[in-house]
Amino acid sequence: MSEENQSFVKMEREESANFFDIVKLTKERANEKKNEEFSTKINRKETVRLGKHTKFNETTNAFIFKRSQGDEIGLALQFAIIHLTELFKKNKSSKDDLLLFQDFQKTKKVYFPAAGSENTPKHTLSDFKFKAQSPKGFQYFRNALGISDEDYISTIAKDKLKVMGNPAKSGALMWTTSDNQYVFKTVSKAQSKFLKQMLLGYYMTLHQHPNTFLTKFYGLYTLRMRKRSIRIVVMRNFFPHGIELTHKFDLKGSTISREAGEKEKQKSQPTYRDLDFNEIFKSLYLEPQYYSEIENSIKFDSTVLDAYNIFDYSLLLGVVKPKDQGIIKDLQRKMSRENFQNMVFQGGIPAKDKDGAQCYLYIGIVDMLQEYDLAHKLQYVWKAVKHGPHNLHKVSVQPPGKYKHRFDSYMLNNIFQPKKIEEKTPELEERIPAKNWQKAISLAIKNGKDLN
Amino acid sequence: MSEENQSFVKMEREESANFFDIVKLTKERANEKKNEEFSTKINRKETVRLGKHTKFNETTNAFIFKRSQGDEIGLALQFAIIHLTELFKKNKSSKDDLLLFQDFQKTKKVYFPAAGSENTPKHTLSDFKFKAQSPKGFQYFRNALGISDEDYISTIAKDKLKVMGNPAKSGALMWTTSDNQYVFKTVSKAQSKFLKQMLLGYYMTLHQHPNTFLTKFYGLYTLRMRKRSIRIVVMRNFFPHGIELTHKFDLKGSTISREAGEKEKQKSQPTYRDLDFNEIFKSLYLEPQYYSEIENSIKFDSTVLDAYNIFDYSLLLGVVKPKDQGIIKDLQRKMSRENFQNMVFQGGIPAKDKDGAQCYLYIGIVDMLQEYDLAHKLQYVWKAVKHGPHNLHKVSVQPPGKYKHRFDSYMLNNIFQPKKIEEKTPELEERIPAKNWQKAISLAIKNGKDLN
Repeated sequence: MSEENQSFVKMEREESANFFDIVKLTKERANEKKNEEFSTKINRKETVRLGKHTKFNETTNAFIFKRSQGDEIGLALQFAIIHLTELFKKNKSSKDDLLLFQDFQKTKKVYFPAAGSENTPKHTLSDFKFKAQSPKGFQYFRNALGISDEDYISTIAKDKLKVMGNPAKSGALMWTTSDNQYVFKTVSKAQSKFLKQMLLGYYMTLHQHPNTFLTKFYGLYTLRMRKRSIRIVVMRNFFPHGIELTHKFDLKGSTISREAGEKEKQKSQPTYRDLDFNEIFKSLYLEPQYYSEIENSIKFDSTVLDAYNIFDYSLLLGVVKPKDQGIIKDLQRKMSRENFQNMVFQGGIPAKDKDGAQCYLYIGIVDMLQEYDLAHKLQYVWKAVKHGPHNLHKVSVQPPGKYKHRFDSYMLNNIFQPKKIEEKTPELEERIPAKNWQKAISLAIKNGKDLN
Repeated sequence: MSEENQSFVKMEREESANFFDIVKLTKERANEKKNEEFSTKINRKETVRLGKHTKFNETTNAFIFKRSQGDEIGLALQFAIIHLTELFKKNKSSKDDLLLFQDFQKTKKVYFPAAGSENTPKHTLSDFKFKAQSPKGFQYFRNALGISDEDYISTIAKDKLKVMGNPAKSGALMWTTSDNQYVFKTVSKAQSKFLKQMLLGYYMTLHQHPNTFLTKFYGLYTLRMRKRSIRIVVMRNFFPHGIELTHKFDLKGSTISREAGEKEKQKSQPTYRDLDFNEIFKSLYLEPQYYSEIENSIKFDSTVLDAYNIFDYSLLLGVVKPKDQGIIKDLQRKMSRENFQNMVFQGGIPAKDKDGAQCYLYIGIVDMLQEYDLAHKLQYVWKAVKHGPHNLHKVSVQPPGKYKHRFDSYMLNNIFQPKKIEEKTPELEERIPAKNWQKAISLAIKNGKDLN
């Protein structure tokens, strides 16, 4: 960790750190950077094009998204999100606990001139405008997912956002928080609009099935900088913090060209695909209770996506296969199995590979906001909400759902398989609660590595 | 109870009674009535007009709504609701547990010719068509409110629906189930449409505030009979079954002409109004915990109604003031206070009048679907759902909310008032659970009456 960032961490640890401390620190750090550093005069010969709006400057080693540097976008995001969330929290009255469906369509806008204004602090970035889409809706979602405003701010403020050296295939630019808990990703105008329209359905999904594997959306923002609009979605990173994945897969249930390329395989953490999974694992075997939970969640989630006419989504699967299986076995015996939800979302779902080795799985369904045919999807959602009998027959027409069926079938027959329980877990006096389980695995893996 | 109806009650008691038994019994009973009985040739001299579509035939003592007799409408409703709910339950797959927001706009239609058809049984009423609006949505609401499909059907099938001799001021025709648990009420096309559009918001309300006093909607149906569409909403009756109310009030927080007329006062169970309340009770005093629960619910509910631009709603208040206060005092000491929700919805909220006499309160907010300015309300909801930045400013414009503020203030300062707890309830070994509390009061009141 660089010295300039240590002050952030310190601040975060102080319980009394309030908004103005955070603003001050953000400002101080921003001051350390000279404004010129974010100069984005682009010498075409020095830049590589990575996407429609994304470039990489080989001389300065900087990512550029629509005229602005990745680092500056990241700082502006931190600055504005912290400012807004705090303001929102402060002005919250008890009546505001009530979320109305109209709230999903609302926005909160703030202008942040570099010189500061009556309501906004000074900063050394370029002037920018900031818009939070449906702030109340996302606040509700975060709270429902166990994240308080304090958690949200402190995770984002912890340290500088890391621009990911590996932008998404879509050409989007991505950032993560320093602890890898949150992922920031640029989205198109159509995607942003689509997400906003999906929020009501998302609300219903979270209520009816809290174990959902669907992407956890924490915020949707528009940054207006250098006369260009940069739309950003904040999501939960499905993968664990502090545990290195043994394998990472992007699975669709299709075998056509679903193989990681040579270039991808040379990366330190390649994203493998369906055909690679077949070679590496063939199948993962779960105890019936876990298999059944995964089955329910996958079927539920794909039904929701199908209802929104969404397809081409992926199951993101992280596998941790500890080298020292003995330590894991010990730990597992002590583990509390009471709360499946905690296990799925915090500790990883236990499974075995074909040789009987213990693994832990981290699962998420991603790519819900794809560009392909988005106009059609928007139209579909729109019609579904629209009243009037002349539209009802259109609403009743269900999308074919072929993608869903292939997806369900492949995941639940090929990727995951139920296995019989070989031995009953002995009842021990002291069991490790699921919340500490991740920590325990992490330690076990480290120890295991040291021993090898 | 008439003999012809006893078979219904018997059927309801048999656990194994299935759909076909119910249909058979409905059919048998329908057969007993001669089709001519429902003849609706109207001699103008014999009828009194009670509303736009409602008439009363003084010779046959029958209510007529849009060409059909009240009794026949009631039988058709029972027949069709039972048929549809059973069918719906049978065809339900596990996947159907998922409620999507598109489901709120769906309908299920069935044609019931008197001669029967492949899918529908024979009956002796006029041919009719039946449409269930958002069957999945209402099923979800009923289940969320603790009513299974079996409960719903058996309550409706219990006995003949009672046409209420006292139709609503709106001119609507009303029915109740024999046990007074459910109220059926005709609604206009605009009201039906408005309710359908409100369902999403209603879903959010039930989730966020299960203690809501808002009308509990159980179903919305359209009966097409004699070429006229009869739209019916099914609601929960807020008032207790088996306990006679001492007083019934319709309160709005306005004092202008808010007084029961002489004709109303002569009824066996008059509906009093704001000015009458002031004379009879002045205020009702609640222990702080109950006052605070009522305060929360009223503020929450009026905020929801305000957000939908709904005003002119009423607080329906039923007061039970047992004559024998000693018995009640005894009972109260034994009562479990653990579950407020049960108390409110089943046992009545305890309160005292200005003389310290113990009362029990039953509260509901009604008239959410009023005709007045409904076009404007529809437009408002419509805009709120509508996407696109050019509409956002319209959405953000909040209705003035004057009605809400007057309503809140009047209810929470005049009607209900907090009082200090005089004595601590002693801890007794055995306390009556809230669910049996209503029964206990009922017995106590009856005993009290016998003693006087």
